[in-house]
Amino acid sequence: MPSASPTLKTLLLTCGDPAGIGPEVVLAAWHATDVHARARLRVVAAAGLIEDVLATVPSLPRLRVATVAIDDPRPSTPDTVLLVEPDAPREQVPRGMITAAGGRSAVAALETAFMAIRSAAAAGIVTGPLHKEALHAAGQHVPGHTEWLARACGLPDSAASMMLWLPPAPAARVGAAGLGVVHVTLHESLAHALAHLSTEHIVHAGERLASLLAAMLGRRPRIAVAALNPHGGEGGLFGNEEQRMIAPAVDRLAAGGLDVAGPLPADTLFLKASRGEFDGVVALYHDQGHIPIKLLGMHRAVNITLGLPLVRTSVAHGTAFDIVGTGTADPASMLAAINAAARLVDAGWLGAD
Amino acid sequence: MPSASPTLKTLLLTCGDPAGIGPEVVLAAWHATDVHARARLRVVAAAGLIEDVLATVPSLPRLRVATVAIDDPRPSTPDTVLLVEPDAPREQVPRGMITAAGGRSAVAALETAFMAIRSAAAAGIVTGPLHKEALHAAGQHVPGHTEWLARACGLPDSAASMMLWLPPAPAARVGAAGLGVVHVTLHESLAHALAHLSTEHIVHAGERLASLLAAMLGRRPRIAVAALNPHGGEGGLFGNEEQRMIAPAVDRLAAGGLDVAGPLPADTLFLKASRGEFDGVVALYHDQGHIPIKLLGMHRAVNITLGLPLVRTSVAHGTAFDIVGTGTADPASMLAAINAAARLVDAGWLGAD
Repeated sequence: MPSASPTLKTLLLTCGDPAGIGPEVVLAAWHATDVHARARLRVVAAAGLIEDVLATVPSLPRLRVATVAIDDPRPSTPDTVLLVEPDAPREQVPRGMITAAGGRSAVAALETAFMAIRSAAAAGIVTGPLHKEALHAAGQHVPGHTEWLARACGLPDSAASMMLWLPPAPAARVGAAGLGVVHVTLHESLAHALAHLSTEHIVHAGERLASLLAAMLGRRPRIAVAALNPHGGEGGLFGNEEQRMIAPAVDRLAAGGLDVAGPLPADTLFLKASRGEFDGVVALYHDQGHIPIKLLGMHRAVNITLGLPLVRTSVAHGTAFDIVGTGTADPASMLAAINAAARLVDAGWLGAD
Repeated sequence: MPSASPTLKTLLLTCGDPAGIGPEVVLAAWHATDVHARARLRVVAAAGLIEDVLATVPSLPRLRVATVAIDDPRPSTPDTVLLVEPDAPREQVPRGMITAAGGRSAVAALETAFMAIRSAAAAGIVTGPLHKEALHAAGQHVPGHTEWLARACGLPDSAASMMLWLPPAPAARVGAAGLGVVHVTLHESLAHALAHLSTEHIVHAGERLASLLAAMLGRRPRIAVAALNPHGGEGGLFGNEEQRMIAPAVDRLAAGGLDVAGPLPADTLFLKASRGEFDGVVALYHDQGHIPIKLLGMHRAVNITLGLPLVRTSVAHGTAFDIVGTGTADPASMLAAINAAARLVDAGWLGAD
């Protein structure tokens, strides 16, 4: 065991809804990650839950389990899961289904993690997947972790956004370069998204993207803003949003000192970005960013919270109730989320913009 | 040399604009394709042009060149390019740039090929890339080959559409399955595309997609219609086009006997299709289809004409003036276009709907 290092920061992992694959990907990632050398990892979960999952999913690594206090300074190691138990008592949660107990359990862990962040006992949170309907069944009228955290910070839901981060893949694969995507509009109809696009919103998204990527990469990122229309509007023939709204946003971002290109036709832009020409893309609407990210490797994508004064990363996949307990859950996204959180903590990222 | 088979059908290849990479990909594909066993290939080009290209691009295979009449029955072989010379006299075309001569040359070859199709001397056309501005400089006020052919058939430009066809890739790669995409709207602003979407247009696109895929694959294809809004509208929360317009189109296609799913969220749909769950996708707007096709392998994509009474396939890439003569032009799209045309001719595809 390496000697305790007081300079290590603490990262808290939560399982999300314990009924989903969250506990499995957390435990697999715990054993596989090399972040133990750089941060103290803790899982915020009841010991009984973790022991049950280890006992019933034989494909998981053979891990010892120990419960520690939030201020225990010992480093983490790949062989022993160090647990911080949530403040709420453990409930039995049947796995593989939507239950109010699953939703309550996810929120209890998040709340404990948030309090540790607020008291500076921890430096970042990495969350597993939860299920919106389980949250609702638990009486939590909030769309997800992100909005829960916004409200806990005393901010409106709209203050928070996210960057989807696709870490670099093995060389010679499509999408071998890392790629970050921030959306200007997200969960609204395409018609509403078109109506709500503005130069202001594009600039805001570009600033958040560049700021986060600078922390992730430790250098000035190369970003690009996608066009809205086919062929980038083909000089106004296929729409004028490019001239009217997007090019002025790119000009403002460039005037602010960013290395930014655009508006670029979205189809070739994502191809270029996937080959490493850009570190990040501002996508104008949900599917413009999600179609390429999913094709390039959704199983390893990470959701990084923007706009809140904290470091929080998350898996980008769901609870996958259908494969719970089968040993087939892929920990790639959780591994990438842990890695991203460690990098942001190392970089002194403040989270807010 | 195999003995002449009178049952072989003739496929005519054109180079598109001779100033672009068309002649290079045609010659590379001539040597590499295995279609010679199934069809008589001919290149519609002046002997001088082909000899010049062979002499100046050393990376090309060492090919003999012979000029034949359109009704010459001899089979083609990988080592000797059989040329049908266009009816128009050859013009010198400087390579690597936009010229009126390049546009005229492309149209002269297309015209010769079209006359051969009309007289039943040939069964299909495979076209190389042309450049719209060269066409315009040549006084041809037409966007491309497809519209030129529509007009030659006495049909309005709008009668013709296309399927983008991505042939199967080597196993274990993203997009290992083949995939066809037909767009409901294409070269118009996203706002116009939203305004022009209708159940009628979606049904029409789905019927064309299924009909062409049935001929390509020799079986009933599995097709899907993309949703317009994030998460497929999330039950009406993010837009109602899915219930109002797209689901009724899917119902009509299913009632017509097609194996059709949808509306499906576009981000996961293309991931599923790339894994072989669907043979074809109806995309609602340009970027919805082009973002995934380009990521999955634009260099091997084929453009197949729909709505005209003939078999015509084309490379899906452009003239790439910047790499002309460098020996780096990839013939994958031309190879796939030849293969697709041969399959459609074998299947007795009529082209029209």
